Amino acid sequence: MLLAALRQQVLRANQEIARRGLAPHTFGNASGIDRDGPEPLVVIKPSGVDYASLTPGDLVVTNLKGEIVEGSLRPSSDLDTHTILYREFPAIGGIVHTHSEFATSWAQAGRPIPCFGTTHADYFHGPVPVTEPLTAEEVAEAYVRNTGAIIVRRFKSENLDPIAVPGVLVAGHAPFAWGKSPAEAVEHADVLEYIACLAFRTAMLRSASVPSLTSGCEIPVYVSEHHYLRKHGPKATYGQK
Amino acid sequence: MLLAALRQQVLRANQEIARRGLAPHTFGNASGIDRDGPEPLVVIKPSGVDYASLTPGDLVVTNLKGEIVEGSLRPSSDLDTHTILYREFPAIGGIVHTHSEFATSWAQAGRPIPCFGTTHADYFHGPVPVTEPLTAEEVAEAYVRNTGAIIVRRFKSENLDPIAVPGVLVAGHAPFAWGKSPAEAVEHADVLEYIACLAFRTAMLRSASVPSLTSGCEIPVYVSEHHYLRKHGPKATYGQK
Amino acid sequence: MLLAALRQQVLRANQEIARRGLAPHTFGNASGIDRDGPEPLVVIKPSGVDYASLTPGDLVVTNLKGEIVEGSLRPSSDLDTHTILYREFPAIGGIVHTHSEFATSWAQAGRPIPCFGTTHADYFHGPVPVTEPLTAEEVAEAYVRNTGAIIVRRFKSENLDPIAVPGVLVAGHAPFAWGKSPAEAVEHADVLEYIACLAFRTAMLRSASVPSLTSGCEIPVYVSEHHYLRKHGPKATYGQK
Amino acid sequence: MLLAALRQQVLRANQEIARRGLAPHTFGNASGIDRDGPEPLVVIKPSGVDYASLTPGDLVVTNLKGEIVEGSLRPSSDLDTHTILYREFPAIGGIVHTHSEFATSWAQAGRPIPCFGTTHADYFHGPVPVTEPLTAEEVAEAYVRNTGAIIVRRFKSENLDPIAVPGVLVAGHAPFAWGKSPAEAVEHADVLEYIACLAFRTAMLRSASVPSLTSGCEIPVYVSEHHYLRKHGPKATYGQK
Repeated sequence: MLLAALRQQVLRANQEIARRGLAPHTFGNASGIDRDGPEPLVVIKPSGVDYASLTPGDLVVTNLKGEIVEGSLRPSSDLDTHTILYREFPAIGGIVHTHSEFATSWAQAGRPIPCFGTTHADYFHGPVPVTEPLTAEEVAEAYVRNTGAIIVRRFKSENLDPIAVPGVLVAGHAPFAWGKSPAEAVEHADVLEYIACLAFRTAMLRSASVPSLTSGCEIPVYVSEHHYLRKHGPKATYGQK
Repeated sequence: MLLAALRQQVLRANQEIARRGLAPHTFGNASGIDRDGPEPLVVIKPSGVDYASLTPGDLVVTNLKGEIVEGSLRPSSDLDTHTILYREFPAIGGIVHTHSEFATSWAQAGRPIPCFGTTHADYFHGPVPVTEPLTAEEVAEAYVRNTGAIIVRRFKSENLDPIAVPGVLVAGHAPFAWGKSPAEAVEHADVLEYIACLAFRTAMLRSASVPSLTSGCEIPVYVSEHHYLRKHGPKATYGQK
Repeated sequence: MLLAALRQQVLRANQEIARRGLAPHTFGNASGIDRDGPEPLVVIKPSGVDYASLTPGDLVVTNLKGEIVEGSLRPSSDLDTHTILYREFPAIGGIVHTHSEFATSWAQAGRPIPCFGTTHADYFHGPVPVTEPLTAEEVAEAYVRNTGAIIVRRFKSENLDPIAVPGVLVAGHAPFAWGKSPAEAVEHADVLEYIACLAFRTAMLRSASVPSLTSGCEIPVYVSEHHYLRKHGPKATYGQK
Repeated sequence: MLLAALRQQVLRANQEIARRGLAPHTFGNASGIDRDGPEPLVVIKPSGVDYASLTPGDLVVTNLKGEIVEGSLRPSSDLDTHTILYREFPAIGGIVHTHSEFATSWAQAGRPIPCFGTTHADYFHGPVPVTEPLTAEEVAEAYVRNTGAIIVRRFKSENLDPIAVPGVLVAGHAPFAWGKSPAEAVEHADVLEYIACLAFRTAMLRSASVPSLTSGCEIPVYVSEHHYLRKHGPKATYGQK
């Protein structure tokens, strides 16, 4: 069996997708690449197989043209997106695609995730970009490959470094994340989901025009004082002390 | 030990509060009443004790004046709210107080929960009412007892039947729920939280003025068709068939 | 015992409702149909029985008129909705009713779920439809059966194929989903919940008019640069390397 | 090994961060201080180490200048924030930093959390304050130490008592919480997250201008009556009674 070690890493990355709840059902896939042999080889999840029952032998090995080199199952239907990313982003070693809740909601809203805080800045150098929608011609011609092509186009047009910006939102679809290895790719997919969650709530708070949000203590002071003092200070009556 | 069977029921109701995640830390309590003896007796959680370590013997037995009849621990700091409800609502047999997420948010917003659907209508006959805020005088005089008094006042002013409306939101505080037994009370506390969650999301959707919400398919039809047809119909390419 | 294999499938679908958290308490039910015998027979959950304690023998067998053919328990109170759907949608083999969080919120808001992305398009051919409300006459005449009737009416009026649109929102109530088998029905109920969740967040983001959402990096660049560079690049100081 | 008992407390506080889900990955840290020896000593989590694999011996002991007194691993990158807080807030004995979901969202929105209810008033005497953003000079000079300095500045400018207000939001970053011990600090971090969650939902409800929220029963009364009466009263048809 080719690439035993990489198979293990890709298997674990696929299991992590499920364990972290990043893709219900089989809405997600992970792959890894070995660039050291005579020709680069990709190990990828087979299509529509449950994460729980995956074995290393189920994984499919292809070359960068998407031709199957080893494996009896059909590869992930997203294979052509993975291979174009590996061809165009030579520094990456693993890719993870999910339909995780918050990141997918931003993708569906067609909006980049602004850098609202340091959790984001620790992992993504700038906003999480969102692609253009595909045109009808691009869908008809080669939907999956062109999904990769619009990702690459966004990175080139904004001169982004895929190592510094390790993920993207495909408009109307969902996120792709990557890294130097399959393990790093799944970590980035998970962090991207967390960033998207924080940013969703931040955006909601910022757009809420609540006068009360600026006026300090919203319950009457005589209630808040009463509550605070019954748990704290010399006259506390709460608990068993 | 008095009231062994009721102690078991009250213990289980307190454990259910924790198991269902209705009150983090010790922000909640359950009680039950035995109305059959020479004087009615209440069994209630002790104050500030972890749900996980509670035993039947830790529970405190009081009369309807709040005087301790049996027990070495201090009763829940909310005892006087429980006793006034038992005095004024003679049909109820158990009370549960929580700080559950969504119900507390409605209480903090000071808004009754409208009957948005049949999940609500199955359990609550009309909106879930919200009390008035307490006045400074009521807080100073007897905060906990007056918390019960404003609940009773709301039910009397609207002529509500506590069996048909088995819970309430205390403005700026949190929900109380009740039922014919401690088990029913905790079930109602849990259903109230679920109703509050559904109503929160319904209110958000109703207040969202999104043009897109009326225009049908938001991603281009050539994308949605492509996706639908690659999983369904004679030309499906997804999975292993 | 009639229909042993179908009983097993229906039992598992009911257990899946609970396992996936699609219906707290007993707010949900699954059924299946055998169309191969002399008369079509439906296997359905009994009313108000906990999912955890269900056994194959508890399930109730009825014909398409709703008459009990086998079983000592009362069938689900939604039986007449199931039977009308089986009569009118001859291609379906299983039905699942839930009160799942996000789908029910859309039902309560009385709004169809727009196709915001490919997760939706993979399973539903077009928006998830919502019924009209029932009239007072329809409720008085036969509430449960007419709940089925307004579903059928929506599908006929929009010329929808129940196999391509495997679910619906009943206005002010909750979702029904179906499929070729009970297993497919519960999968569709789960996917519908996920679609509804993504669409809720998408709708919220789209209706948020946050200027900040378009301006890129929201924290000062000197902060985001500092954070990015302390974890990445030659001067990284984070972790143990 | 120095400070064996404090190491145990700090270890447990770090494990609690993970167990309560307050910081995914290693986005959080806990420390404690011993003020009884010849010089005060801080025990703190090492940088970038998983909570699950932490042992007491992995923890790092430093003095209040941040100099390592015992330990072979690099201390948390947030060490200088901890030490300035210990120097300036002499009554505190433990500090916990997290990136918990809701508290971080408020920090990213740059807004203090108003006291919307008694859950808040039980723990925080007044709103949860938010710092000013750091200036470019402060970041360049000493980012981590100045993060502590802006916290201290906020408390001094508003004359806040760190024991009565046991936490803060750092604008564009995340919360810090503290207490008399590491255990109390992590309890406060957890309560702060819960308060932030309740306040988020409260703010959303308050800013929703839904006419329906004031009109009582939103589904037609003939539907809600039908549902209520089929589960309650003499003509109930639900369940097995």
